[in-house]
Amino acid sequence: MQQPLTEEKVFKDPVHNYIHVQDTVIWRLINTKEFQRLRRIRQLGTTYLTFHGAEHSRFSHSLGVYEITRRIISQFERSGYKDWIPEERLLTLCAALLHDLGHGPFSHSIEEAFQMNHEDWTCRIILEDTGITEILQEVEEDFPQKVASVICKKYEHDIVVNLVSSPLDADRMDYLLRDAYYTGVNYGTIDIDRILRVLRPYHGRVVVKESGMHAIEDYLMSRYQMYWQVYFHPVTRSSEIILRQVFRRAKQLFQKGYSFRFMVEPLTDFFRGGINVQQYLQLDEALVQATFMQWASESDELLSDLCSRFIHRKLYKYVEMESLDMETIDEIRRSFAAAGLHPEYDLEIDFPTDLPYDVFRPGEGFHGKQILLLDRQERLREISEVSDIVRSISGIHRGRYHLYYPQDKLERALPMLPDSIKELFEIR
Amino acid sequence: MQQPLTEEKVFKDPVHNYIHVQDTVIWRLINTKEFQRLRRIRQLGTTYLTFHGAEHSRFSHSLGVYEITRRIISQFERSGYKDWIPEERLLTLCAALLHDLGHGPFSHSIEEAFQMNHEDWTCRIILEDTGITEILQEVEEDFPQKVASVICKKYEHDIVVNLVSSPLDADRMDYLLRDAYYTGVNYGTIDIDRILRVLRPYHGRVVVKESGMHAIEDYLMSRYQMYWQVYFHPVTRSSEIILRQVFRRAKQLFQKGYSFRFMVEPLTDFFRGGINVQQYLQLDEALVQATFMQWASESDELLSDLCSRFIHRKLYKYVEMESLDMETIDEIRRSFAAAGLHPEYDLEIDFPTDLPYDVFRPGEGFHGKQILLLDRQERLREISEVSDIVRSISGIHRGRYHLYYPQDKLERALPMLPDSIKELFEIR
Amino acid sequence: MQQPLTEEKVFKDPVHNYIHVQDTVIWRLINTKEFQRLRRIRQLGTTYLTFHGAEHSRFSHSLGVYEITRRIISQFERSGYKDWIPEERLLTLCAALLHDLGHGPFSHSIEEAFQMNHEDWTCRIILEDTGITEILQEVEEDFPQKVASVICKKYEHDIVVNLVSSPLDADRMDYLLRDAYYTGVNYGTIDIDRILRVLRPYHGRVVVKESGMHAIEDYLMSRYQMYWQVYFHPVTRSSEIILRQVFRRAKQLFQKGYSFRFMVEPLTDFFRGGINVQQYLQLDEALVQATFMQWASESDELLSDLCSRFIHRKLYKYVEMESLDMETIDEIRRSFAAAGLHPEYDLEIDFPTDLPYDVFRPGEGFHGKQILLLDRQERLREISEVSDIVRSISGIHRGRYHLYYPQDKLERALPMLPDSIKELFEIR
Amino acid sequence: MQQPLTEEKVFKDPVHNYIHVQDTVIWRLINTKEFQRLRRIRQLGTTYLTFHGAEHSRFSHSLGVYEITRRIISQFERSGYKDWIPEERLLTLCAALLHDLGHGPFSHSIEEAFQMNHEDWTCRIILEDTGITEILQEVEEDFPQKVASVICKKYEHDIVVNLVSSPLDADRMDYLLRDAYYTGVNYGTIDIDRILRVLRPYHGRVVVKESGMHAIEDYLMSRYQMYWQVYFHPVTRSSEIILRQVFRRAKQLFQKGYSFRFMVEPLTDFFRGGINVQQYLQLDEALVQATFMQWASESDELLSDLCSRFIHRKLYKYVEMESLDMETIDEIRRSFAAAGLHPEYDLEIDFPTDLPYDVFRPGEGFHGKQILLLDRQERLREISEVSDIVRSISGIHRGRYHLYYPQDKLERALPMLPDSIKELFEIR
Repeated sequence: MQQPLTEEKVFKDPVHNYIHVQDTVIWRLINTKEFQRLRRIRQLGTTYLTFHGAEHSRFSHSLGVYEITRRIISQFERSGYKDWIPEERLLTLCAALLHDLGHGPFSHSIEEAFQMNHEDWTCRIILEDTGITEILQEVEEDFPQKVASVICKKYEHDIVVNLVSSPLDADRMDYLLRDAYYTGVNYGTIDIDRILRVLRPYHGRVVVKESGMHAIEDYLMSRYQMYWQVYFHPVTRSSEIILRQVFRRAKQLFQKGYSFRFMVEPLTDFFRGGINVQQYLQLDEALVQATFMQWASESDELLSDLCSRFIHRKLYKYVEMESLDMETIDEIRRSFAAAGLHPEYDLEIDFPTDLPYDVFRPGEGFHGKQILLLDRQERLREISEVSDIVRSISGIHRGRYHLYYPQDKLERALPMLPDSIKELFEIR
Repeated sequence: MQQPLTEEKVFKDPVHNYIHVQDTVIWRLINTKEFQRLRRIRQLGTTYLTFHGAEHSRFSHSLGVYEITRRIISQFERSGYKDWIPEERLLTLCAALLHDLGHGPFSHSIEEAFQMNHEDWTCRIILEDTGITEILQEVEEDFPQKVASVICKKYEHDIVVNLVSSPLDADRMDYLLRDAYYTGVNYGTIDIDRILRVLRPYHGRVVVKESGMHAIEDYLMSRYQMYWQVYFHPVTRSSEIILRQVFRRAKQLFQKGYSFRFMVEPLTDFFRGGINVQQYLQLDEALVQATFMQWASESDELLSDLCSRFIHRKLYKYVEMESLDMETIDEIRRSFAAAGLHPEYDLEIDFPTDLPYDVFRPGEGFHGKQILLLDRQERLREISEVSDIVRSISGIHRGRYHLYYPQDKLERALPMLPDSIKELFEIR
Repeated sequence: MQQPLTEEKVFKDPVHNYIHVQDTVIWRLINTKEFQRLRRIRQLGTTYLTFHGAEHSRFSHSLGVYEITRRIISQFERSGYKDWIPEERLLTLCAALLHDLGHGPFSHSIEEAFQMNHEDWTCRIILEDTGITEILQEVEEDFPQKVASVICKKYEHDIVVNLVSSPLDADRMDYLLRDAYYTGVNYGTIDIDRILRVLRPYHGRVVVKESGMHAIEDYLMSRYQMYWQVYFHPVTRSSEIILRQVFRRAKQLFQKGYSFRFMVEPLTDFFRGGINVQQYLQLDEALVQATFMQWASESDELLSDLCSRFIHRKLYKYVEMESLDMETIDEIRRSFAAAGLHPEYDLEIDFPTDLPYDVFRPGEGFHGKQILLLDRQERLREISEVSDIVRSISGIHRGRYHLYYPQDKLERALPMLPDSIKELFEIR
Repeated sequence: MQQPLTEEKVFKDPVHNYIHVQDTVIWRLINTKEFQRLRRIRQLGTTYLTFHGAEHSRFSHSLGVYEITRRIISQFERSGYKDWIPEERLLTLCAALLHDLGHGPFSHSIEEAFQMNHEDWTCRIILEDTGITEILQEVEEDFPQKVASVICKKYEHDIVVNLVSSPLDADRMDYLLRDAYYTGVNYGTIDIDRILRVLRPYHGRVVVKESGMHAIEDYLMSRYQMYWQVYFHPVTRSSEIILRQVFRRAKQLFQKGYSFRFMVEPLTDFFRGGINVQQYLQLDEALVQATFMQWASESDELLSDLCSRFIHRKLYKYVEMESLDMETIDEIRRSFAAAGLHPEYDLEIDFPTDLPYDVFRPGEGFHGKQILLLDRQERLREISEVSDIVRSISGIHRGRYHLYYPQDKLERALPMLPDSIKELFEIR
């Protein structure tokens, strides 16, 4: 099982050109139904409603993370770095490949609505008697536990954890490149070859040779740009809000005993709050979309309207505000209620924020969230100590309030809304 | 309605960088639910099971075809070519945008199984009282009819038809570029800017200035390569075969009165053979995938096995043969039946073929399937008369027989199969 | 003369795909020997000795600047912006095309050594009876003066000057893209289509629509990265230093009456300090390189050594220092002299610095060095007021001292150098 | 000397991203003045006068050929192919790096005018006591001889020769990619990663795994397109003709004892026909261009006119003819002479031709000019036996006669030319 394949297999990939598979274990993992399921989960959730090209799946991304990890390790081995542990190669590759296995359909929204966590599901799928578990056990009895502990950041060898989760991990590198490629937004184009060349294992973690500082600056800037151009795009947020509202409403109705025109397993158990791994694996975006299409004809008007909005892309509009206090919010909700609008569903407030890079704060010690530079004298320094650029962007908190609302409903309620509200929503 | 937008709108597109929308009509058509439905139909059907990157939708492609058409027309107008009819701009753009509107989920397979035709559905959606019809009628009462007639190649002005359907149309140019981009196969990369520069309207059709001959040679070679590398890829064909078998089996069961564990509208009417436009618009790939996932637990073994294969990507294997006669096929089917295999479902024969370019045959006159070069003396010549390359690839019939079969079943039936069959399928 | 060409001409360009020439004047200007001379002047001087791909000429760059300007204007015209002056189109294009006409061979170094200025030469070539002058005069008697005044930033219409010289001008956009392309360094890849879309003429200058802020942030970061990765690369600086030393030495020798083994017109007049336009136009990099090759056999050892170093790329090494005071410099020079090294030629000190973007300082008013954003309420704001990123990088002064020296000579002088010096130069 | 470098060195390259140097010998060879000289010889001669981007040097190309060879060998070693001889690695890399060392300035034209051969010069530079010879001798006393014999295709191990010169060698792959990149013509973009993956050493030569056939088809088509789009471009041919005429005229004048206004070593010995290696190494394109600039003021009108044409890009025009017989040529020359034109210099006839791929002809045996496919049964077949495309393009002889002439002179001589000639040259 730990043997290499007799002949290397490749997947053609638009981002990395080829994904190289050299181990029987990896090949078999890819062919499990648990891993194939990731083809039915989009990498960027509803972002395709904003950037039509972004229809790629977590399957593609997972292969990409695996491939970058493979290249990093292969670079470590070729350079003969002594701080790398060659025995951990297969473990690292498996963890890289499988780290997103537990993602559900439109996970950001579903996790929020149902208070779940995809990492937990990843570990359960690895550990609880699936096709994945079986293959990993053939390597070693406790190999599934090892893989899971790497993904949960608890594995004994930090260097392995560091490769899979850190501010410079293969996950982030692949998604920046891949999301840039599929959206067509070229800000995410990082010099991956250069970055790979400057990484080094050093005392249990991956550090960066000082000569590579500019490549890292560029990487952090790309990350920042992708957040604001793509990940936090207000149209995408709008579609996520509607999605969350659908889930919320359906759960409320289910709990109230509403009789759904369309309902199918494993959704009932899911609403009940108790699905097992086998049921979880049946959840995918095809199911969600097909269900929403059916629910667009439900008798509950709120649910059918929300589903119809999502399926036909009639999203909420938004206004942007620099500041917003509780009082104003309350006032809006009151006015909405008075005008016959739903104070909860017809107004959502969003405040996206991202810290491009967390700086080292003296006294805190080095921790996993930092990028360390290694100079020729083998001194380690946190990157923001050396780079003006990183220092200057670290800690930038950007973000504005966005108020989302259904424009058509608001327009219908117009005569009943006070002028202050009309002004706020720029409706005349 | 025929007015331009007050401000041009753009879609970010990874292939064309930006898609420019300048007309209110186009903007409104894109926002109909009929057009948004194309987001739920993949451009390349099951190809994503072979090239994992190819998850793009017909929505993206339709925008691309529109954009290329817009650029061609804008080039015509800038050059002041007198054989172009400026009044036909909007009609041409609408036809380009909508030409794929009637595609169903996994259309190649579904059309074969149900003997339908997506072009008919395109015209019905345009003509039968949908949101699309309404918008087009606002332009002119009979504008829906005009758009449909362009798509059906019956419109009075040939130049319009020619832009939308011809061997050098915007459809082909976009799909070559787009499919190459998403699969990562770089053979499809054509020099679109160059091609656009050398197109000219001339006596009711689009011809090519002679100086552009090499760009066209390159385009025809790219087309040829994409056919053999991507569109006819045996793994994709394998998944299409399974898909067709699912549809075929489900239809048989439905007609026999089998009681499905899972069945939902509009599938029942679809199997009955009589759905209307509104029902057709509910068909999408989410529905098909969600249904297959449910059917993977049907009691009919054949159906559940086929669905499970499709969802979990356990495809049929294949052997390739240079030639194959009816006698051999009969022999295989007989042996299969004798060994307990299904003579119909456990063996499918495929013979993909493509003519890279149909040559002009003297005496036939010029027709729509030809590419004509216009030289400085304003003489028209069919490209294969001038280009050695095109002449030499024209009429190349390539193709081999592929026999597809479920390997696991064959292996189980092995003891009962004659040696000749074992040899044929390279099983020992 | 002001007529458009009967048929648009194109140049194939790897950066912009095609350069479109639509005016007879532009076509004729490109074909003058004055403009063709730019083929023999490299865009990045000696940078090809660091990045071997960077062998592109000012000819290519000048075409690129012209093309970007053409696209901006064409965008202005299509959008019907009323603050653009359509009559200035040809003038702007001519100024864009010709703005680098006066660059001499390896201009950075030659200008420093001979205290000249390429802008002066550009204007002289435009004004003093060359083929260029003649073509421009055919447009209008004082057209040469107008073109020159745009280049010298004195033309009456600010918007024209602004297009040709400003922090967002076509010059900078082309060189970032082009230098990135030819060096292979991908940090310079900016989204030019996006930037062009967000530019607007407004009250006599080019401003940026607020929605384009991120594209400008990205552009400023790219600029910053290109400065530190490419333009200030220490190996390039080393070659420039040698070049300057050659010119300096040759001038000294010439003034002392040294009899050169090889000397050719117009170099003698050049050393004498009085060449005219016709002579200046004979200066190119072929002449410089051929001369250096000959001078590598001069009897003056310093000159022949320097020339040989340049031609055969035996550059100076360098050490980097965070700080450096006059005292230390004096000490090094004294020690060098004492050890038989040349205190002037064997040690050069360099301190490259760049301000990525100059912020607006309140009270200074808007001036040409700023980038202004125009929001929907038609308010103008300087970009660093709005963008955290720009604010944080503005005013970053980076830079370290670099000491350049001939390693072989230093090693030979080693026994005579004090330990402090050895340590400084990391020689043991 | 045969040791690896302590740390791998890289060159940033726009085509291959990075060129990796791992051996001390390679590093030292690159830094010789003989190799650095290639920076002053353009890869595509005068092509930059047609495609302004094509200003790249043989230095870049030589590094590229080295890098592709390194990747092929590294792929051979990783796959453990037993038909590869690991001991020949360094020899192969040296031969790949140095194979173009003997190219002179504008070599196609200079070689034709002086009946020299760059391969001979390559071998002389390797063998006759240069910096190159010295470094190679440190590997092994007869290593220079070995390297030279590989380049001359006489080395005992065919596989080494085959890697450096064959229809699929690293030389061709690099120049297709590089020339496409610098000209901006995208027809040359081949899938190098794919090609490298399908190469295999087999019985003393490099063959192609059958699964790679389409990649090779694409490669041969790209080669064909680049020949007709770039290498045979009539404007480039025009500049080459002028260049050849300059050399021819200068040689005639020199032999007649003409006293040149400008003449410099080693040109005199070169015209005399007897330069040695050291003198040859001083020939570069800077010298040629600087000389032509000076000769543009020579008293010999023919010479000064030709030089001026070359420097200022006032090239010959051409007419294209499908066929041309000796009689017509004689007639033109006679008419030219009668009209005061130079029958030899004012008319040049060119007939470019290329065979995209030489087919195997049965009975000839396999030889170096063929591409062989290896199928799963380890059968070797010449590619045109298997590929319809290759068969159909093999043996295509394309080519038309081009008559080049100085248009201005012809126009002046117009009254004295017979109508038949005027018609031929399309002058009215």
